[in-house]
Amino acid sequence: MGECVSLASCEILCVGTELLLGDTLNTNARFLSRELADAGFTLHRQAVVGDNPERLHRDFLTAWERSDFVILTGGLGPTADDITRETVCGALGIELVESPELLEAMQTFFCIRSLEMPKSNRRQAMVPVNAELIMQNSEFSERLSQKRDVINNSAFVFPNPHGTAPGIAITQNGKCAILLPGPPSEMEPMFRQSVRNFLAPWIDGILISHEVRTMGIGESAMAEAVADLLDGQNPSVAPYAKSGEALLRITAKAKTREEAEVLIAPVLEEIKRRLGGFIYGVDVPNVETVLLDKLCKAGKTLCTAESITGGGIAKRLTDCPGASKILLGSIVAYCNEMKQGLLGVSAKTLQENGAVSEQCAIEMAQGARKKIGTDFAISTTGYADGNEQLRANVALDSEAGTQVQHITFARNNRKANKLTAENTALWLLMQNI
Amino acid sequence: MGECVSLASCEILCVGTELLLGDTLNTNARFLSRELADAGFTLHRQAVVGDNPERLHRDFLTAWERSDFVILTGGLGPTADDITRETVCGALGIELVESPELLEAMQTFFCIRSLEMPKSNRRQAMVPVNAELIMQNSEFSERLSQKRDVINNSAFVFPNPHGTAPGIAITQNGKCAILLPGPPSEMEPMFRQSVRNFLAPWIDGILISHEVRTMGIGESAMAEAVADLLDGQNPSVAPYAKSGEALLRITAKAKTREEAEVLIAPVLEEIKRRLGGFIYGVDVPNVETVLLDKLCKAGKTLCTAESITGGGIAKRLTDCPGASKILLGSIVAYCNEMKQGLLGVSAKTLQENGAVSEQCAIEMAQGARKKIGTDFAISTTGYADGNEQLRANVALDSEAGTQVQHITFARNNRKANKLTAENTALWLLMQNI
Repeated sequence: MGECVSLASCEILCVGTELLLGDTLNTNARFLSRELADAGFTLHRQAVVGDNPERLHRDFLTAWERSDFVILTGGLGPTADDITRETVCGALGIELVESPELLEAMQTFFCIRSLEMPKSNRRQAMVPVNAELIMQNSEFSERLSQKRDVINNSAFVFPNPHGTAPGIAITQNGKCAILLPGPPSEMEPMFRQSVRNFLAPWIDGILISHEVRTMGIGESAMAEAVADLLDGQNPSVAPYAKSGEALLRITAKAKTREEAEVLIAPVLEEIKRRLGGFIYGVDVPNVETVLLDKLCKAGKTLCTAESITGGGIAKRLTDCPGASKILLGSIVAYCNEMKQGLLGVSAKTLQENGAVSEQCAIEMAQGARKKIGTDFAISTTGYADGNEQLRANVALDSEAGTQVQHITFARNNRKANKLTAENTALWLLMQNI
Repeated sequence: MGECVSLASCEILCVGTELLLGDTLNTNARFLSRELADAGFTLHRQAVVGDNPERLHRDFLTAWERSDFVILTGGLGPTADDITRETVCGALGIELVESPELLEAMQTFFCIRSLEMPKSNRRQAMVPVNAELIMQNSEFSERLSQKRDVINNSAFVFPNPHGTAPGIAITQNGKCAILLPGPPSEMEPMFRQSVRNFLAPWIDGILISHEVRTMGIGESAMAEAVADLLDGQNPSVAPYAKSGEALLRITAKAKTREEAEVLIAPVLEEIKRRLGGFIYGVDVPNVETVLLDKLCKAGKTLCTAESITGGGIAKRLTDCPGASKILLGSIVAYCNEMKQGLLGVSAKTLQENGAVSEQCAIEMAQGARKKIGTDFAISTTGYADGNEQLRANVALDSEAGTQVQHITFARNNRKANKLTAENTALWLLMQNI
């Protein structure tokens, strides 16, 4: 995790009435803010405007006058209310022409899906006149060595491997406007694959950050344990919370990667010393990836027996490429009959201890491991919402024996409690591989 | 889905460098946008600025000039970088004075928590001179009957039961600025308990919207089918895409709910006529809720046999309250042994047709329904990423027989392809209940 440093000022302008209506949570602004901060750009403003040509025209020009970079998302779709391409090019006095290559790529996109291309999609092949099409990413990285003045007063089109709306970058008088699609599933990969490379010539130094991921500790307890380190400037240390986990981000600025790493090293060591027992990884995407990696290296297999989490653990594990080598399967036993019939929980346990008991969690894990024949099995059972006392038990079974952990939920929030049960089970496994 | 209408134009201005760094996801903008839209206010812009007095001063005045309402969040805290109160009151020429009542309330807040009040918190007792303190909400609701001209050129202070920073509303020359704390846990209750009441005098009518949810059709094909309706003003019709689904929102403004519904009815009928086969619900949260509801009414049960989706269908179904009455369980068979041993897929099918074949999907659904003993079973199998030809088969088994549907994936995107397989299986079930 290392990026370069620039002194350029930026604004983000997200276009879409759905954002102004509150229908959509603006994750694009956050994604881009973090990416730009990591790259050392100074972001002065984020803004959202609706699909209104006059307001977009005015707000774009205001941003264009006061900042070096204006990054827009949304409004590149095929429908009539998608106005970003036309409005921005209109404001900058740039003519749009149809690109035969893009049109063909788009037709292929629909053809592969055995669909007819709707006529309205044709608009998405309109690009700034004389724009350079970057159809292959590898082709583009050759331009990396170019200085920013060489690519001034030009236009570039970025491929969209996940949709039909291409990205567009326009450089003019030392400034730059970048138009990206609105759906995060298209925008984020386009930013990572094309825009990062495109921004390279503006970057003057290097900025390195490392992300320390913890489990089993809350954000404020974590922040308290490293309170004195949070005042540091270079490296800076910032705590944040994400999907029930507490994270720390350490960031240093320097002329070279090596210098930045030298600044970071002692701080990272100190954090590890204080939080060691809660850290499951540095610069790793998530706990499930780390778990699968550890199990893979150990040559071990896993299965899950899920009640309260309803398949959520299996879902997260199978979101990771290569999961099929480790996770052989899962039994979601949402009724007593399945707990008894498929997982072998005893009738006595169900009657005397109940389906959310520690004993039931233990027998679920043992039963699943036996039935599916894996090295490890994790189980979950509990009440995530409703009138019962909200609680859960998670268990881990392996050759080494069975462990169980109890959870009490403070809130009547079904999804949050399911997530807590998932994380507790995954963390129990992590501590025992 | 119906709320009151105002003709007032609004802007939201969120203050905080943590938002510009991408450390914090801006859920406040979404919360306020939805609340304001529901209340019939026209939101023209959302913006984010950092903790920078000059930029905040400038951006606040720009918003103040062009809009009736400017709602700000953040920057009311006790630390030096909290600048919203001073900057906005400065821009409007309003003097701040310390409120003894607020100071006392704040001291009580700390006392109850057995904490000493930090000196820096004293700043939070500064309020516009002559501001009316609304310490009890009940007291405030009496003012509801007041017309907006009565409360013009005044200032009000809202209580913060969840923190120390009070909210502030300032009315001046028919315009209004509302300052709210940044933490959602303080801002959201304050909005619901005080700001909604405060806004009541500005509301003149009613705004009703209905959301038509479809599956099995892309956003552009859907938009094309209703292209002429998208030009309508009252009701307006807008297409959007969300989690692999295409949606249409119909919105009408009128004096009464009944009048708005009369405007909407013929348009909704026409949309149903054109897209009927793809519509699974109007004003429903998601496909899984509708499915569970239909199954519940029919007194039917369901199970899933998942390979490519890895428990994702069970996860989505169990996210819905009450799922346990319908979904008895799920078998995630991520390896051939589980497909054969637990689901009863024949060795012949696995050898001759392979694990992602139509025949395997059929036998998985049949096997799961038999094993778990439900009325319906849906199955998924396929390759979501990697070097194989990316494809899937989903099947549905019930008393009425077995159906299977083939999917070809165009992109090498594991999560997106898993989601497509989930949606295809859920849609296959929906069409057959």
